Amino acid sequence: MRQKLFFTGLIVMFAFSAIAHYTHMDMTLQFAISAIAIVFAAGFLGKATESVAHYAGQRLGGFLNATFGNAAELIIAFFLVKEGLFDMVKASITGSIIGNLLLVLGLSLLAGGLKFKQQHFNQQLAQHNSTLMVLAVIGLFVPAIFVGAEHFTVEKDHFLSLAVAVILILAYVLWLLFSMVTHKQMLEDSEMSADHGEEPAWSKGRSVLMLVVATVMVAFISEWLVHTLDTFTTRFGLSELFVGAFIIAIVGNAAEHSAAVILAMRNKIGAAVEIAIGSSLQIALFVAPVLIIASALMGKTMDIIFTPIELTAIAVSVFIAKSVSGDGQTNWYEGVLLLMVYCILGIAFYLV
Amino acid sequence: MRQKLFFTGLIVMFAFSAIAHYTHMDMTLQFAISAIAIVFAAGFLGKATESVAHYAGQRLGGFLNATFGNAAELIIAFFLVKEGLFDMVKASITGSIIGNLLLVLGLSLLAGGLKFKQQHFNQQLAQHNSTLMVLAVIGLFVPAIFVGAEHFTVEKDHFLSLAVAVILILAYVLWLLFSMVTHKQMLEDSEMSADHGEEPAWSKGRSVLMLVVATVMVAFISEWLVHTLDTFTTRFGLSELFVGAFIIAIVGNAAEHSAAVILAMRNKIGAAVEIAIGSSLQIALFVAPVLIIASALMGKTMDIIFTPIELTAIAVSVFIAKSVSGDGQTNWYEGVLLLMVYCILGIAFYLV
Amino acid sequence: MRQKLFFTGLIVMFAFSAIAHYTHMDMTLQFAISAIAIVFAAGFLGKATESVAHYAGQRLGGFLNATFGNAAELIIAFFLVKEGLFDMVKASITGSIIGNLLLVLGLSLLAGGLKFKQQHFNQQLAQHNSTLMVLAVIGLFVPAIFVGAEHFTVEKDHFLSLAVAVILILAYVLWLLFSMVTHKQMLEDSEMSADHGEEPAWSKGRSVLMLVVATVMVAFISEWLVHTLDTFTTRFGLSELFVGAFIIAIVGNAAEHSAAVILAMRNKIGAAVEIAIGSSLQIALFVAPVLIIASALMGKTMDIIFTPIELTAIAVSVFIAKSVSGDGQTNWYEGVLLLMVYCILGIAFYLV
Repeated sequence: MRQKLFFTGLIVMFAFSAIAHYTHMDMTLQFAISAIAIVFAAGFLGKATESVAHYAGQRLGGFLNATFGNAAELIIAFFLVKEGLFDMVKASITGSIIGNLLLVLGLSLLAGGLKFKQQHFNQQLAQHNSTLMVLAVIGLFVPAIFVGAEHFTVEKDHFLSLAVAVILILAYVLWLLFSMVTHKQMLEDSEMSADHGEEPAWSKGRSVLMLVVATVMVAFISEWLVHTLDTFTTRFGLSELFVGAFIIAIVGNAAEHSAAVILAMRNKIGAAVEIAIGSSLQIALFVAPVLIIASALMGKTMDIIFTPIELTAIAVSVFIAKSVSGDGQTNWYEGVLLLMVYCILGIAFYLV
Repeated sequence: MRQKLFFTGLIVMFAFSAIAHYTHMDMTLQFAISAIAIVFAAGFLGKATESVAHYAGQRLGGFLNATFGNAAELIIAFFLVKEGLFDMVKASITGSIIGNLLLVLGLSLLAGGLKFKQQHFNQQLAQHNSTLMVLAVIGLFVPAIFVGAEHFTVEKDHFLSLAVAVILILAYVLWLLFSMVTHKQMLEDSEMSADHGEEPAWSKGRSVLMLVVATVMVAFISEWLVHTLDTFTTRFGLSELFVGAFIIAIVGNAAEHSAAVILAMRNKIGAAVEIAIGSSLQIALFVAPVLIIASALMGKTMDIIFTPIELTAIAVSVFIAKSVSGDGQTNWYEGVLLLMVYCILGIAFYLV
Repeated sequence: MRQKLFFTGLIVMFAFSAIAHYTHMDMTLQFAISAIAIVFAAGFLGKATESVAHYAGQRLGGFLNATFGNAAELIIAFFLVKEGLFDMVKASITGSIIGNLLLVLGLSLLAGGLKFKQQHFNQQLAQHNSTLMVLAVIGLFVPAIFVGAEHFTVEKDHFLSLAVAVILILAYVLWLLFSMVTHKQMLEDSEMSADHGEEPAWSKGRSVLMLVVATVMVAFISEWLVHTLDTFTTRFGLSELFVGAFIIAIVGNAAEHSAAVILAMRNKIGAAVEIAIGSSLQIALFVAPVLIIASALMGKTMDIIFTPIELTAIAVSVFIAKSVSGDGQTNWYEGVLLLMVYCILGIAFYLV
């Protein structure tokens, strides 16, 4: 019964939201409708992820959620690259990485930690995640330093950017091979936590289908929401960097946000971590490199050189997330720490 | 009997030291008397801390010691802020942080490690301490990077400094809530090490009283000592930065130094770590932010921007201390490593 | 029988290689002969190291291998210092450190990991290694920052460089005392892995002798190889930095490379790690400081200031190696990660 009510609400709000967008209603109204719609859609997505995680394990469930979530971002960024809006692309990549590592992970640990004294996930996975984050920082950091050297021409810059992009993608693909095939068991959560939930409502195939549908809905609604925010932000005089790195990242990652928090509150912290950290790794090691290669194929190469401010934000996020998550144990205070760093960065980006 | 002799010596030397200071005796004589007096006072303080630790646990004992020790510094720094001597305040904050992380912790690990092959303290505490140190570095580092951006006005600088200060204080207060209330047991040392000492001489209430008295005595004598050093240093042509960050920090933290080393040698390494790391965290996350807010209330805001040299010193100290203390196990060589880094920084500051 | 064939091949190829070098044959021919010779010599060295490790434990075996390997480099660098070629010395120090941490360690973990699902070595050793690497980075980093300060004269630069050099050597000597004497047992590999191999062919004394002979042979052949590369590189227009930091480092460290990989494939990962990380620590904490002191004694001081690019390469290598090796467990993917970072740095150095 409650189930039925929920899905009715979901479909009605999604339709309303679409109508509001395509009939160009008043921006404030559009915003309000989409905001309600996204709450329903996010709830749906959380349910679907949990159901998939039941069949496929927390990691694969989290991975699928992160991938579908990032697919939407990849598509949006692709169009920005086509139009040559490289700075905005990099700002939104930065925002996605720090948003996932600090906001999504922070809220998950806080929400989960307020309910459970201490939550555990696979420590080996935690350490491998940390190392991959370090690789991502190195991949962004090294070109930025070398580009400052004398006689470093634009051609060299582009070549280095493409080479690093290929290496990062290769590292990511091999990571999937390692973590999903050769060492799958080593990185799995202990059965204990996997068995906690009740029987899911959907079959295996249906769960995956629902996950896809839910992700698509969230992607559409968040796209409409972002559209309204654009007007809002010009009205309030916010900088492009702040909008790209914070507003868009927060709304655009609504899928990850909601699913991760819901899973954390059900003590499936392994899946929550996979969504948050896995998603930011995917952006740094796959989405960003793919965009660079795509830009080169389109004839105008976007380099991998981020601004010092963006690099600082990413490096800082990686170090605190690494420090927090490295032991495979989480509690509410670790969530607070991540959110604090997010606040510091948010205020700094707002002021710049 | 020995007890009685000790307290007679303490009171006599304290009185002598006070007389020497207020009658403006010859500086060299003042220095000699205060130096002897501080040895007695430090011994007294160590005794009192150990006694409190017996009743309240190693962590609370260490925390109280650190807090009373920093109270003196806060008062001195407060007057410096009032006079607008911001550079000296920051130099002494830097000195306090690196002095505690490298000198106090290094001497404690070395002294304890020469007596015991391996000493242990709560590993979860070690990891939380590490993460908090990373937060402190981020809090100091982010504003320094962003302030370099174009169009970053003084008003923005002050706003960012105040915002970061509020966030750091909030993080520190929540840390106390977390570590002293909600997750107290998780961060406690195992009983094994807590039970080692013999029966203390004082009751619970008397122990705390003695701790307060001892801290006040140490604060006074170290203040008098600092006063004599001022003349010494001008005579030897030392830079203000070196005096602020090393001489004053060493003498001004005499309380922490002596107590931590004494506790480490009695195998209460948990209390020693709490004094050293706890004290530097308190300075970075509480004392420094409070001074910034106080300066704003007094009408002339001190910003949170440290010089690149100071930031380097702090970051370097945090990373080596994190690397050394992260596993909750200590030995003499780890103490040596910390002291080596202290020497490198000391020489570098001396030369600048 | 196979044994006999191998040694015949070794001696013949070594002789050929020497003849080719001293009769100034065609460079391409010299290169081909030396390249085959070094394969034999490296195999010999691996055998000898393994034999020593059997008697003396994995750590001491690895340490001896690393020391003999670095002795050759120290001698070459000594002559470069004498001729005042400080930049080339620093480039090759940089190359040795990153080559050992990324290429040697990476290949070892990959080769070992393809054969064994997970390999283990002493975790306490891993953590101490990490901390020493952090010390090395600090020792190189602090002077580079302070030298940028105003009024920092050349005399101060030299004094600081010498002081840091003395401190690093002291730290290294105490490390040997700690790890080989006072806490030897704590850092040893568990017997399990030490007992794996079959009975070695040589006695204890003969094994050490063979290790010395093998190292000397490798040193000579790699020197001849480096000589041929010089012509090659000018022909292909490579930068001095790239040749110094990559080509020379790869060939010059052939001893470490081969021995470490062979040991890793026999599941003696502890010895492989000791060779790779131990060797880079020895270079950073002993070889480099000794060269600085030697240069001062020869009347023209080489300072410890590395270029930002070199510092980045070293810091980046240390952080990924620390992140990978910190838990005392290794697998093929961790090897891949190290090699990826090596590729990124290699391409960047090539382009500069």
